[in-house]
Amino acid sequence: MNTYNPKESQAQVPQGIRWNAEGLIPAIVQDVDTKEVLMLAYMNEEALRLTLQEGRAWYFSRSRQSLWLKGESSGNTQEVMDHRFDCDRDTILLIVKQKGVACHEDFYSCFHYGIQGGDYVTLGRPKEVPLISLGRTMELLAEVIHSRNIERPEGAYTTYLFDKGLDKILKKIGEESAETIIAAKNSSAEEIRYEVSDLIYHVLVMLEERGVSLKDIAQELLSRRK
Amino acid sequence: MNTYNPKESQAQVPQGIRWNAEGLIPAIVQDVDTKEVLMLAYMNEEALRLTLQEGRAWYFSRSRQSLWLKGESSGNTQEVMDHRFDCDRDTILLIVKQKGVACHEDFYSCFHYGIQGGDYVTLGRPKEVPLISLGRTMELLAEVIHSRNIERPEGAYTTYLFDKGLDKILKKIGEESAETIIAAKNSSAEEIRYEVSDLIYHVLVMLEERGVSLKDIAQELLSRRK
Repeated sequence: MNTYNPKESQAQVPQGIRWNAEGLIPAIVQDVDTKEVLMLAYMNEEALRLTLQEGRAWYFSRSRQSLWLKGESSGNTQEVMDHRFDCDRDTILLIVKQKGVACHEDFYSCFHYGIQGGDYVTLGRPKEVPLISLGRTMELLAEVIHSRNIERPEGAYTTYLFDKGLDKILKKIGEESAETIIAAKNSSAEEIRYEVSDLIYHVLVMLEERGVSLKDIAQELLSRRK
Repeated sequence: MNTYNPKESQAQVPQGIRWNAEGLIPAIVQDVDTKEVLMLAYMNEEALRLTLQEGRAWYFSRSRQSLWLKGESSGNTQEVMDHRFDCDRDTILLIVKQKGVACHEDFYSCFHYGIQGGDYVTLGRPKEVPLISLGRTMELLAEVIHSRNIERPEGAYTTYLFDKGLDKILKKIGEESAETIIAAKNSSAEEIRYEVSDLIYHVLVMLEERGVSLKDIAQELLSRRK
């Protein structure tokens, strides 16, 4: 994902797309950080070409029969980080960095209607942007720890831990778990947040040092869901 | 998500859906566990009614002009865990538990085509189902822990911990962190996997007991990426 640059490498609209009778394909839009589905819009060839060239999302409005740049009036633009075509080549998936909210009703995602007792009910609150999940955060953090291990940049605390070695990392796990226990006894949400983060970070460093993958831990934990 | 039961509560197709000229709406299908977008298919009113009644995904094939039950021949069914309508009420988002792979080309997601040098290239391998990330697993596990805290089902270990209270949970954190340290010293990947899972689980129980959200931890951890 890091090397993707639509502006340079993929400005051409690929052959073989199966445009519908109106010359459009649906574009599913997904948030790169939260992985939530934000909206479905439509693209004609020109909208796709502009999107690939500029790296920001253009669509074709079926009601107005015209191109529109997402966020042009609202400022809620979508930076396109990656895209995929499906097996039928009649749908595109855009993976975007969403500025602000996606929905014209001021909700984060257009998919904010559930059904209760046969009626539509709004889920979530206007303008409320979900925080990045713990899940995604840990993936990002583990990536950083891995690159620190490979590159050992000077002055980084993670480099210091890898240089010192396993015993130092394990002493920190002991220390942070004790501090987590004390924080919980103190009933301080702030202290708990800080100490649990420290504990998780040092466990991730240990897993990197020992070469145990996060996926292995995930599989083990999944079996505890029952 | 746990209380959703389309078979009982939402078997009626809601009013006000904006079916297109062919009497269809696009259905975006997302994996509840990995949050990946799996496919786009179409539903007519009957497909939606069957889906809501049975809690498994039915679609309408535009090429064959007939209803189809996803996975009827392949066995790769989709259990519908939740659904959302968008602000225009012309698209539905299905959140499903995917059995096997979603794509008829035997790929996990239909969106497995990227573009390189103007050509389509396949991403991923056939039949390869991505493992759920550690982070997402922790979120799913935290949901289970939360419902155990509310419902306190008899015989569940998590119920036992909540009944015993904070001190018991913290003693377990101390014990599991010590066992994590010993496992790492033993250089046993299997032992590490097991003990780190135990440690994470008990930390999640403590966070639920103390009312500290995973989002708070995520925000704290994000600030460590620098």
